Amino acid sequence: MVQVLSVLVIPLLTLFFGYVASSSIDLSVDTSEYNRPLIHFTPEKGWMNDPNGLFYDKTAKLWHLYFQYNPNATAWGQPLYWGHATSNDLVHWDEHEIAIGPEHDNEGIFSGSIVVDHNNTSGFFNSSIDPNQRIVAIYTNNIPDLQTQDIAFSLDGGYTFTKYENNPVIDVSSNQFRDPKVFWHERFKSMDHGCSEIARVKIQIFGSANLKNWVLNSNFSSGYYGNQYECPGLIEVPIENSDKSKWVMFLAINPGSPLGGSINQYFVGDFDGFQFVPDDSQTRFVDIGKDFYAFQTFSEVEHGVLGLAWASNWQYADQVPTNPWRSSTSLARNYTLRYVIQMLKLTANIDKSVLPDSINVVDKLKKKNVKLTNKKPIKTNFKGSTGLFDFNITFKVLNLNVSPGKTHFDILINSQELNSSVDSIKIGFDSSQSLFYIDRHIPNVEFPRKQFFTDKLAAYLEPLDYDQDLRVFSLYGIVDKNIIELYFNDGTVAMTNTFFMGEGKYPHDIQIVTDTEEPLFELESVIIRELNK
Amino acid sequence: MVQVLSVLVIPLLTLFFGYVASSSIDLSVDTSEYNRPLIHFTPEKGWMNDPNGLFYDKTAKLWHLYFQYNPNATAWGQPLYWGHATSNDLVHWDEHEIAIGPEHDNEGIFSGSIVVDHNNTSGFFNSSIDPNQRIVAIYTNNIPDLQTQDIAFSLDGGYTFTKYENNPVIDVSSNQFRDPKVFWHERFKSMDHGCSEIARVKIQIFGSANLKNWVLNSNFSSGYYGNQYECPGLIEVPIENSDKSKWVMFLAINPGSPLGGSINQYFVGDFDGFQFVPDDSQTRFVDIGKDFYAFQTFSEVEHGVLGLAWASNWQYADQVPTNPWRSSTSLARNYTLRYVIQMLKLTANIDKSVLPDSINVVDKLKKKNVKLTNKKPIKTNFKGSTGLFDFNITFKVLNLNVSPGKTHFDILINSQELNSSVDSIKIGFDSSQSLFYIDRHIPNVEFPRKQFFTDKLAAYLEPLDYDQDLRVFSLYGIVDKNIIELYFNDGTVAMTNTFFMGEGKYPHDIQIVTDTEEPLFELESVIIRELNK
Repeated sequence: MVQVLSVLVIPLLTLFFGYVASSSIDLSVDTSEYNRPLIHFTPEKGWMNDPNGLFYDKTAKLWHLYFQYNPNATAWGQPLYWGHATSNDLVHWDEHEIAIGPEHDNEGIFSGSIVVDHNNTSGFFNSSIDPNQRIVAIYTNNIPDLQTQDIAFSLDGGYTFTKYENNPVIDVSSNQFRDPKVFWHERFKSMDHGCSEIARVKIQIFGSANLKNWVLNSNFSSGYYGNQYECPGLIEVPIENSDKSKWVMFLAINPGSPLGGSINQYFVGDFDGFQFVPDDSQTRFVDIGKDFYAFQTFSEVEHGVLGLAWASNWQYADQVPTNPWRSSTSLARNYTLRYVIQMLKLTANIDKSVLPDSINVVDKLKKKNVKLTNKKPIKTNFKGSTGLFDFNITFKVLNLNVSPGKTHFDILINSQELNSSVDSIKIGFDSSQSLFYIDRHIPNVEFPRKQFFTDKLAAYLEPLDYDQDLRVFSLYGIVDKNIIELYFNDGTVAMTNTFFMGEGKYPHDIQIVTDTEEPLFELESVIIRELNK
Repeated sequence: MVQVLSVLVIPLLTLFFGYVASSSIDLSVDTSEYNRPLIHFTPEKGWMNDPNGLFYDKTAKLWHLYFQYNPNATAWGQPLYWGHATSNDLVHWDEHEIAIGPEHDNEGIFSGSIVVDHNNTSGFFNSSIDPNQRIVAIYTNNIPDLQTQDIAFSLDGGYTFTKYENNPVIDVSSNQFRDPKVFWHERFKSMDHGCSEIARVKIQIFGSANLKNWVLNSNFSSGYYGNQYECPGLIEVPIENSDKSKWVMFLAINPGSPLGGSINQYFVGDFDGFQFVPDDSQTRFVDIGKDFYAFQTFSEVEHGVLGLAWASNWQYADQVPTNPWRSSTSLARNYTLRYVIQMLKLTANIDKSVLPDSINVVDKLKKKNVKLTNKKPIKTNFKGSTGLFDFNITFKVLNLNVSPGKTHFDILINSQELNSSVDSIKIGFDSSQSLFYIDRHIPNVEFPRKQFFTDKLAAYLEPLDYDQDLRVFSLYGIVDKNIIELYFNDGTVAMTNTFFMGEGKYPHDIQIVTDTEEPLFELESVIIRELNK
């Protein structure tokens, strides 16, 4: 049995102007928490970035989420810890004590992952430890001028960890070498030695039989380089409607996303235990919003692929108007591969069965197939009190060819009225170019005007289907206080964005309007559900 | 001698919802033309998109620019023509009669290129025609349900063309197969036959010895696929500070740019006359603004590589508030390859010697090395009357580590005061992450609020240099009525964006402000030049 570890390697010359000790922020300030997400994990107080060590405990039937954590401020800073939370449904999270911390205040336990060492290859466990709870974390130890890969094990189901006495397990004398993602690979092969050249944008794949001794097997670079790679991942993903699967390499870049700041990309290919070979040299993004970074998959998932990301962006993460915490994760998503125009694409969907109960279901259409015009805007009649709802819209574009001009509809997500005003963000569809868009600009609210908070984003979509020659599209969206996750066409494209309404405001209402006088859109179904916390 | 032609191939199933017959717009409306660029080419009236057939006439010493042209409306529509303009300095353009037109009103002469057939391989010329003026255009003939590659020749220096009697020269029975870019390749080899599979994102390279009979040599796909490829190009680009060069494949994607809509990417590699092999599978963009598409290089340039693009974006090109024309080109740019962190990158710079005379030069600093604080904003004292100016700013970031918060300066491009208000766009630099940004949002003006007019864009930059450990950056910008071209760090990154101030307003003034109380930026030089038309 071979363990294979993907480790990011970037060079000594990289400077991290974004990663600087933050001005300390008074965490004792009492706020109303009006904009804290309900089913997206947030730390009670302090700063969070990358999710780490995601795994499922099959015995306790419990999901574990660790995360990059600075409890002392709402901005990144050292000492940096692995915070910890658990959930039995992936939407309600209990935060626990810090799981792993550094030895000194000017150091950090940087990102990493967890593998369950069922067969005790590491020798850390004895027979009293349930094989499903033989938990080994591998992470980057960030000490002055050096980043090494270290390991630690837990004898209590993942709540506390003991560091391996002979750490580090990988040291290439680099201060930019981090974010190991470890997984078991079942096929045994002898291990090869590779060269260990340090480069700015390179994923290195190591192998080990005991989690302690590692051998470099191969390097990988492709796609959009940005300034540097972070947080790699490698996992086998099933292809829809087939018994086949392909390997997917995930990697994150920051800074330098074409959208600005942080983004996750992926590659589809084959992996023989030693080397990942992509099928093509296409650059693909996992999520095309601005707030989806450092994606990681869960270990120990029996069927399929499940993962989540940090729902923020280094361009502005330390300035968002939340207090006394900063940042949430995305929801956990199931991934598959799907052929779209003869090319394999990653799809993303959430498991709706784990969502909280709906307390108010609005089927706006009563009858099916309502034609939308500017005389008949669709306004839901719930005034949501939770700030948490989802919606499912399927529609058809009635004309084959559409002239420029009045060609779109908007879905308005409105706040409650407060201080005589309503704040809205807007998503919608433009039929002339098959584009979905989101506009999270809110006039008169300061934060959305910041120079890096790109407010207008768009996604080109192939139709989900054709009804005769007419294009059919679908959109599932879930809104949770200050975050909106959009899944277009049954998850073919995902787009995650945070937004920030004025103080005290959060999403209350949803409305569909169009600028077209003649009916251009036929709504086949519009179902909105307010969800209980 | 082998001619090699790059031809775009995309499949039959592609639908072009953006490309629809426009509502006719009254071109007789008299407007003030307050926002018509002065040194960026615009057609006097009507619609323009891709630049076509760019070449230099060495005998007449004249630059020729053809362009996708609909004279009947300010939106795309058929019949579509090759418009034509010439210039002897690349900044003052004379528009001429239409050069090539379709046979029927529901057809179009789509994009293509021009090669000078010095040796009369085509047989179209006799000895009375100067070898520098043996002009052959190759373009896509768009007829119902079919796109073929056709050729035409000119006997009068490029003003009128005669279509080849045996057109088409390439017909693969596809209605999505277009935008040929032809060039001479000096090394003779026999020609190979390749297979001609139709795919959505594929560049095909053909060879010919006479411009009439073409053989498919190879296919190429890489990078960011978007929805489809358009407008390829292939040219040898010199490497700075060396006698070496590499081949660069250009290709455009639309829709589906990660920034939204249209973008140009490029690949660096080798070309043997038959096949282009990229050095790596990196995705790189030619310009990271939103208004730079369908880039094409000029034929017959003696030294170096010169090209220009359409300075608009299919997401909103047919809605911008200009009348009675829509769209301009970019300025012509010189390209080289430069090593940036051990990787070859395309650089872009304009030749400043061809710019109009400066009529007002403001060296704001008098003395060198002025420290910028929020108590000392820098306001230029010219109230520009032309709407055309450039600026050159070199600065140093004084602190190595910068905390989040007040970390940036803004360069404001202000309009004249009109109707009691000043409209501004903002560019600037954030030191905490080495990011340049532009914000072209203008409150209270309708067009910049459109859902696809992404207003905030950013560029991560490596420092141009270090002064001891302090980062040094430079920025050259040129503003021309409704367009701003930015060249960061001596052309390492280029960013082109249009902007639209309120009616009657255009750029008049430039101002540098910062939010930092303590000096964080030391301006080494700030030179602003108002330029004459």
